[in-house]
Amino acid sequence: MMDHLVGLAAVSVLAVMEQAYFSLQVVYARRKHSVSPPSTSGPPEFERVYRAQVNCTEYFPIFITVLWIAGLFFHQGVSSLCGLLYLYSRYCYFNGYSQSPQQRRIYAGVDLLDMVSSCLIPDSTPDL
Amino acid sequence: MMDHLVGLAAVSVLAVMEQAYFSLQVVYARRKHSVSPPSTSGPPEFERVYRAQVNCTEYFPIFITVLWIAGLFFHQGVSSLCGLLYLYSRYCYFNGYSQSPQQRRIYAGVDLLDMVSSCLIPDSTPDL
Amino acid sequence: MMDHLVGLAAVSVLAVMEQAYFSLQVVYARRKHSVSPPSTSGPPEFERVYRAQVNCTEYFPIFITVLWIAGLFFHQGVSSLCGLLYLYSRYCYFNGYSQSPQQRRIYAGVDLLDMVSSCLIPDSTPDL
Ligand SMILES: N[C@@H](CCC(=O)N[C@@H](CS)C(=O)NCC(=O)O)C(=O)O
Ligand SMILES: N[C@@H](CCC(=O)N[C@@H](CS)C(=O)NCC(=O)O)C(=O)O
Ligand SMILES: N[C@@H](CCC(=O)N[C@@H](CS)C(=O)NCC(=O)O)C(=O)O
Repeated sequence: MMDHLVGLAAVSVLAVMEQAYFSLQVVYARRKHSVSPPSTSGPPEFERVYRAQVNCTEYFPIFITVLWIAGLFFHQGVSSLCGLLYLYSRYCYFNGYSQSPQQRRIYAGVDLLDMVSSCLIPDSTPDL
Repeated sequence: MMDHLVGLAAVSVLAVMEQAYFSLQVVYARRKHSVSPPSTSGPPEFERVYRAQVNCTEYFPIFITVLWIAGLFFHQGVSSLCGLLYLYSRYCYFNGYSQSPQQRRIYAGVDLLDMVSSCLIPDSTPDL
Repeated sequence: MMDHLVGLAAVSVLAVMEQAYFSLQVVYARRKHSVSPPSTSGPPEFERVYRAQVNCTEYFPIFITVLWIAGLFFHQGVSSLCGLLYLYSRYCYFNGYSQSPQQRRIYAGVDLLDMVSSCLIPDSTPDL
């Protein structure tokens, strides 16, 4: 049973570490641009980093839920691999968004949401 | 073991799809009202949709945690059913809130939080 | 199997109740300072309570994930105990932050993030 889960657990731990990294980036951005809590508004550079972290945080529980259900009911290896791909695309999303709101679109291809929307709206298909 | 979990998993997948639907509504509201990221402020119509999605997102991990613990330790069928009821009430909440902040209250009766507060504050008992 | 999980489940339920408590505090703060939804800005007293709840909510799914993986793969007792410690420190964080943004730092020592940052930045080591 446990063997069956170790890949999912590893990807989950990696996801947690990624979230910690994103949070730390917000802490650094707060220092750099002197935006002290509880404020969340500041120069656009800060707001982009802040929103990138919030957006990734929003999808974190959804990601964990999908990862574990897919891993338990279908195939652990495939799920873990897709999980890794998702985490990598989130990393690109975060870095892209930190630089400019447009950049985030380019890398968001593996994003669950963008997958859906790219199916519905053909002309916005991301080129990842 | 797996049979014992399939109902919970189905409700979880439905919850994920509901969250994806809420997120898409925010994307559409962003387009309609020209509120491009990283901004989250705009006309009241946009802010209501945005806040409705954020509020549902806030309770998503709490919902998943309660669903699975109740399903594992008590009764899968009952938990799944209550889960479906919660998802339906969230759908009503989202639509109500999108129309007006008052509407959201009417439908929020199955909301965990409102259940607690309606126990504590008798005169605000929701009429669901 | 179930025996092996009952401690983790108990801590998770406690975490859910703590989140419900934080949410109720926001509802009360909204009433007290007349900040009606969808607005989230108001007097600093309100914004601190609001941000404290949002910040705790952000870390909730991360906490649940770490708790269960640590409990399943390492030791249930130790994980549950660390979980309780985390919940207590979150309670202190929330109360501290509600009073002043500086207060929150003092109690945030068990915070995952602060643990990381206190390792990286020696002079900001929290004195918990
Ligand atoms: N979303 C958080 C991410 C970083 C974080 O968790 N920071 C901690 C330690 S500085 C905090 O207490 N933030 C205050 C807040 O979120 O309002 C933020 O905006 O600050
Ligand atoms: N809370 C999100 C929900 C929708 C969403 O996830 N949008 C994606 C694709 S347009 C995004 O990158 N949003 C930017 C952001 O959240 O700041 C929002 O406000 O936009
Ligand atoms: N983050 C929430 C926490 C409390 C909560 O969940 N309130 C419910 C019932 S009053 C709500 O519908 N809030 C509206 C919102 O979050 O925009 C808030 O800011 O209000």
